[in-house]
Amino acid sequence: MALRQDWSEHPCPIARAVDIVGDPWVVLILREAFTGTRRFEKFRDRLGIADNVLSKRLQLMVDAGLLERSSYRGEQRTHHEYLLTESGQELLPLLHTLALWGERHTTPPQRSAHMTILHSTCGAATTQSERCSNCGEPMTAQTTQWRRTWIDRAAVDLEPA
Amino acid sequence: MALRQDWSEHPCPIARAVDIVGDPWVVLILREAFTGTRRFEKFRDRLGIADNVLSKRLQLMVDAGLLERSSYRGEQRTHHEYLLTESGQELLPLLHTLALWGERHTTPPQRSAHMTILHSTCGAATTQSERCSNCGEPMTAQTTQWRRTWIDRAAVDLEPA
Repeated sequence: MALRQDWSEHPCPIARAVDIVGDPWVVLILREAFTGTRRFEKFRDRLGIADNVLSKRLQLMVDAGLLERSSYRGEQRTHHEYLLTESGQELLPLLHTLALWGERHTTPPQRSAHMTILHSTCGAATTQSERCSNCGEPMTAQTTQWRRTWIDRAAVDLEPA
Repeated sequence: MALRQDWSEHPCPIARAVDIVGDPWVVLILREAFTGTRRFEKFRDRLGIADNVLSKRLQLMVDAGLLERSSYRGEQRTHHEYLLTESGQELLPLLHTLALWGERHTTPPQRSAHMTILHSTCGAATTQSERCSNCGEPMTAQTTQWRRTWIDRAAVDLEPA
């Protein structure tokens, strides 16, 4: 990432991956994209991120192939949407790994704030990031719901590709 | 993390997790710790990281409970070792998720540079981060080897807890 040391040409795939996703905003933008956010203004409002910071991160994510920008003509001006690519979709296990580790090893500000990852096919809450710990099927955006008690009691479907 | 916006009190576990591990150096220090690096000088030499940057990251990782510092008296002065805690050990799937994604979606500088994650119990290369894709057993430091062709043709055992 251009903001700091460049690991994009490193032989280690972990280093090349963190060169792209080793940034809190990038991960939080991915989280929003998986829950249906597509437009600049909505990312900004949901994340409370400064315009210039968001703009730079979205461009980096497009350049890195995680998001695809599509434009359409609105009534007054052209709008852009940012959609997860296949490569971006394959970062769902990263978000799940972070969520599960965060639930186990960090403390929420309110005791009642918890995130549960649900496998919609079998209905179970999974304790694994890639495959449902109940039935063993892969967890994809198509088959995953998130329940985040501090937002809503109901679980939400993730955005299919 | 004190270097930037603070997500440590956020209700979302993904945000609290990236507050700690959403930093390339933290992830690369974890990678070294899993392959047996324990001392400041060795982290510095292996990573090519500036002393002050390394020092700050190690302290953050101790404060966040990923590493434990132990001291012992050497011939001339006191030495410190940094060892993975249980919470740090549970980030192995994060490293594997990044390695697998990096292998699939980024390009190494030399075609021959590849990282393979081996499950030593069954001997297979796994395509999953948490459980061996061949036998389904959990991948822990005790049962995992990494083959990194740009370092050595042989696979190395990870550091057990």
